[in-house]
Amino acid sequence: MAVFNKIALIGVGLIGSSIARVVRERSIANIIAISSRSQQTLDEAQALDLGDDYDTDPVKIVNDADLVILCTPVGVVGKIAKAISGHLKPGSIISDVGSVKVSIIEQMLPHIPDGVDFIPAHPVAGTEKSGPSHGFSTLFDNRWCILTPVQNASDSAVATLKDFWQACGSNIEIMDAEHHDKILAITSHLPQLIAYNIVGTADDLETITNSEVIKYSAGGFRDSTRLAASDPTMWRDVCLHNKEAILEMLARFSEDLSAMQRAVRWADGDTLFDMFTRTRNIRRQIIDAGQEIDVSNFGRDD
Amino acid sequence: MAVFNKIALIGVGLIGSSIARVVRERSIANIIAISSRSQQTLDEAQALDLGDDYDTDPVKIVNDADLVILCTPVGVVGKIAKAISGHLKPGSIISDVGSVKVSIIEQMLPHIPDGVDFIPAHPVAGTEKSGPSHGFSTLFDNRWCILTPVQNASDSAVATLKDFWQACGSNIEIMDAEHHDKILAITSHLPQLIAYNIVGTADDLETITNSEVIKYSAGGFRDSTRLAASDPTMWRDVCLHNKEAILEMLARFSEDLSAMQRAVRWADGDTLFDMFTRTRNIRRQIIDAGQEIDVSNFGRDD
Repeated sequence: MAVFNKIALIGVGLIGSSIARVVRERSIANIIAISSRSQQTLDEAQALDLGDDYDTDPVKIVNDADLVILCTPVGVVGKIAKAISGHLKPGSIISDVGSVKVSIIEQMLPHIPDGVDFIPAHPVAGTEKSGPSHGFSTLFDNRWCILTPVQNASDSAVATLKDFWQACGSNIEIMDAEHHDKILAITSHLPQLIAYNIVGTADDLETITNSEVIKYSAGGFRDSTRLAASDPTMWRDVCLHNKEAILEMLARFSEDLSAMQRAVRWADGDTLFDMFTRTRNIRRQIIDAGQEIDVSNFGRDD
Repeated sequence: MAVFNKIALIGVGLIGSSIARVVRERSIANIIAISSRSQQTLDEAQALDLGDDYDTDPVKIVNDADLVILCTPVGVVGKIAKAISGHLKPGSIISDVGSVKVSIIEQMLPHIPDGVDFIPAHPVAGTEKSGPSHGFSTLFDNRWCILTPVQNASDSAVATLKDFWQACGSNIEIMDAEHHDKILAITSHLPQLIAYNIVGTADDLETITNSEVIKYSAGGFRDSTRLAASDPTMWRDVCLHNKEAILEMLARFSEDLSAMQRAVRWADGDTLFDMFTRTRNIRRQIIDAGQEIDVSNFGRDD
């Protein structure tokens, strides 16, 4: 049974197109309307038959939607919320998929009309690929979707959005937006920035060519390049909109790295051994929690 | 046709056991002799039927070997070279698989007897798993093996070791030890230390529980945990034995990270966008070079 009659997706990149696919495949809604600022992206989505209605203007697709999800970079959600505000259906739910939540609430909440429930959401899932062709219907299976409802959201709307994301395959957690942003700063934003930084440092070396970096990347470097292949616009916006939490994690990371650097400089093998020993268990727990596959080298050599 | 009659492997962890497997599978040598300091590891290797002869004392297995390969952490190669020195067969080749080369040469060269060719080697391949049970025969396929022959090694011995590693599936590059150590510092040692450091930083947070880090690790963090699950003894030794090159790469990385941190603090979106844009191409090149699989998320979701 469908959770909604019509859902409207504003933005149809990796996440938006994956939602479209899983909604269609599992009949979670009867009608899928899709908007993208770019005509080319919209044409791609239509060629992939991801939805029923398409329009570059989000105002045109939200009218009678029961659920509207913004699937854009987090820097533009305020502008979009303002534009569609007067066109939302009374009793509908408006949500998003962004990797930051405090800023999303600050940007969108002023534009939410009475009678519409605003429930920010973040499906913690993704790949390094961008665009409608790279989505897939199982992206959210067994991944966590975090809801950070604002105070005036109705319990029934929260329950409905929970049903929706469960139908998409996700486990649900509810928490406040500030805590979400701190967790994601360490579990997603820091690893992302570090990956960009490692690849940047390697790219800058004068005495080692890029072709050498590429040839010998199987020694570990290639791992970092996956995250570093992610969409620059999306990540620029995350940095700009989760600044304080990211700066805190960068500061902690740098302090810890200085301690490690000091242990290398002073050839303090015992300290290095201790630092390298306590980390193994965390991967084991991630695998046991079903958030990572249990094969070596991410299964590349299978 | 076998490249050697007998090879002796001193150390039978991931790399040693993978060599044993590929040598057996492709008949690269007629006899495989295996040594491990640990009786338990040796029993494991024997239970897996990885070789023909087994002894905890390396002296007992090198006697009539045409090729001796040290597959131990790089901190103990000097001691082993000294112990086996008087027992090596004239005309034989002695080599290793370590991720540092200058220190290996310093440690081993004084103990190499006349009439034996010492050719340091480094197959740039591996996984995060340790021990004889995790090796596999295709580990070296299409990976690079770097030889860093010392000046007095004979051309024919270098050619023979090249044949050996090609038979194991590798591509061969020959370079000097100093250059090798710089390349590996950026393509392997730095990513490894950074991975340990990210996981350590996450483990230390007071306001976010480990269970939260684990649940939401699919946002990027889980990638870092693969390298951080690697063998602590091996990596302690790499740090102690490639200190200068690692310190240089850590310094460069930290400088670059400070610049990125500054861009986040000053909300300099253009600089962040530029930093995040130039990295995508490197992954593309690594995939094109056959050093990475061409599927998103390392194929986890296939």
